[in-house]
Amino acid sequence: MSDEVTAVLIIIGNEVLSGRTQDTNLQYIASGLVERGIRLKEVRVVADDETAIVTAVNHLRATHDYVFTTGGIGPTHDDITSACIAKAFGVPLRRDPRAVECLLRQIKPENLNEARLRMATLPEGAELIDNPVSHAPGYRLGNVHVLAGVPRIMQAMFDGLKAGLRGGARLLSLNVTIFGSEGLIAEALAEIQRRRPDLEIGSYPFTRDGVYGTVIVIRGTDRTALNEAGREVEEMAGRLGVRVEGEGSAQ
Amino acid sequence: MSDEVTAVLIIIGNEVLSGRTQDTNLQYIASGLVERGIRLKEVRVVADDETAIVTAVNHLRATHDYVFTTGGIGPTHDDITSACIAKAFGVPLRRDPRAVECLLRQIKPENLNEARLRMATLPEGAELIDNPVSHAPGYRLGNVHVLAGVPRIMQAMFDGLKAGLRGGARLLSLNVTIFGSEGLIAEALAEIQRRRPDLEIGSYPFTRDGVYGTVIVIRGTDRTALNEAGREVEEMAGRLGVRVEGEGSAQ
Repeated sequence: MSDEVTAVLIIIGNEVLSGRTQDTNLQYIASGLVERGIRLKEVRVVADDETAIVTAVNHLRATHDYVFTTGGIGPTHDDITSACIAKAFGVPLRRDPRAVECLLRQIKPENLNEARLRMATLPEGAELIDNPVSHAPGYRLGNVHVLAGVPRIMQAMFDGLKAGLRGGARLLSLNVTIFGSEGLIAEALAEIQRRRPDLEIGSYPFTRDGVYGTVIVIRGTDRTALNEAGREVEEMAGRLGVRVEGEGSAQ
Repeated sequence: MSDEVTAVLIIIGNEVLSGRTQDTNLQYIASGLVERGIRLKEVRVVADDETAIVTAVNHLRATHDYVFTTGGIGPTHDDITSACIAKAFGVPLRRDPRAVECLLRQIKPENLNEARLRMATLPEGAELIDNPVSHAPGYRLGNVHVLAGVPRIMQAMFDGLKAGLRGGARLLSLNVTIFGSEGLIAEALAEIQRRRPDLEIGSYPFTRDGVYGTVIVIRGTDRTALNEAGREVEEMAGRLGVRVEGEGSAQ
C-alpha cells in the first residue's frame, strides 16, 4: 500500500452542520476518486470559521496527497474559504486578472461590484480550475483544490480536473448479496478476510420484504484475488444454506 | 457564546468514503441537535481503521461537550468501533450481561454465536443506549455516544437519548428568499451582518426556472433581534428592487 494515493475532503459550511442542507458532494467526489484509484481517507465538515478551516487545511494537506474543499467561494460575507486558504499557506490574497476575465463571461462590466470581485480575489499562486457552469473559478494551490459548494458547479469543476490527478492502482470491487443475517455469516466471513489480508471485505446488512440480508463488498486491486474471494463468499453462503446473488466478476 | 453546548459527529465507515453509501445520519443528528440547542461544530468521516478512529475520538471528546459516532457496531470483522472506543478510553472490552439480554429479545439462545455476542462486548463502563428496532444496543461512555450506522436504527437510538442531552440556548432561524443574485445583495447584506455580530447570516444561492435567487438564513438565540434582522433584509431587497419572500417570524 506504499504507492497508495490518498485524498481528503473538507466540506465548508454551516448549512451542512445545521442540517439545513443534505450534502451530496461527498459521494460525488468519493466516486470520482475511486475511478482514478485515489483513496479518500477522511472527510471533515467544518463551520464557516477561520480557525476551523485553517487548522483542517494545514493538518490535512501535510498528511495526504490531495485535499479538496467545497463551499465558501461565493461573493457574500460568509464566503471565507479563500481568505482561510491564503492564511493556511501564508500567502497574500490578490485580485487575479484571469479570474476577473472568467467573471466577465457571466457578469456585465458595470455589474462587477466589489462583492463579485471577491470571487476573483485569490491566494497568490492559485492555478484556476474552470467553472463551465457559472464561470467564477475554483483553484488549486499546492495540493489543495478549492471547489464551489453548489453541487452542479462543484461537479463540473471536479469533472474537469479529475483526469489531471495522479491516479493510483484502481480499486476494484465485487458485491455478493447474501439472504442471511450478518450474525449468521460473520465467523466464516472473518475467516475469509484473515486468509486474504490484501482485500478489504465489508459487510452491510439490509432488510427487504422483512428478510434479513447482507451485502458483502470485496475491494482490492487484484482482479483474480477478488474473483476468488467472491467465489469463496458464495461457497460459504452455500455451506450455510442461504441464498446468494453474485454480480459475476470484479468491476 | 461561553454557555454554548457543542457536539461533533464521527461517521465510521469505508462505505461512505468509497461513495457506495450516501450518508443521511449527519442531517438527522444535526437537525435533532439544533432542536436541543446544541451546536454541531464538526463532522468527521473516517475509515474502518483503528488509528483513525482512536485519534478522532480522543481529540474530539476532549474538545467538545458531546461526541456521537455512527457505524461499526455490528457482528462482523469490519465492525471495530467498540474495540477502538475501549482503546481510546484505555479500558478493557467485556461481555455486558445487560447487552446480552437485549440480544436475546431478537435472537434465539441457540443462535447467539460468538459473532453476535460481539455486539454485547462493550468497553467497561458503557451505559447502554436502547435500540427498539433490532435490540443490539448502542452505548455511552463518558461524553461519547456510540450509535448504529443503519439509519433506521441510528434514528431510533438518537430519538431515545435526545431528551437526556444537556441543551443549550435554542438556536432560532429565519429564512428570507430574495429573487436576486448573491452578487447583487452581498455588500448590503455584509453591512447588516456587521451591525449584528450576535447573529449568523448565511447566504445560499439557487436558480429556479432560470432565475437567480438567494436564500438568506439568519440564526441566533434572540427572537427579537432575528425578526428585526429579517425585516432589514427585506428592506434591503426592496431598496435593491428585487422581489422577496419572508417566512414571517423566527422559528
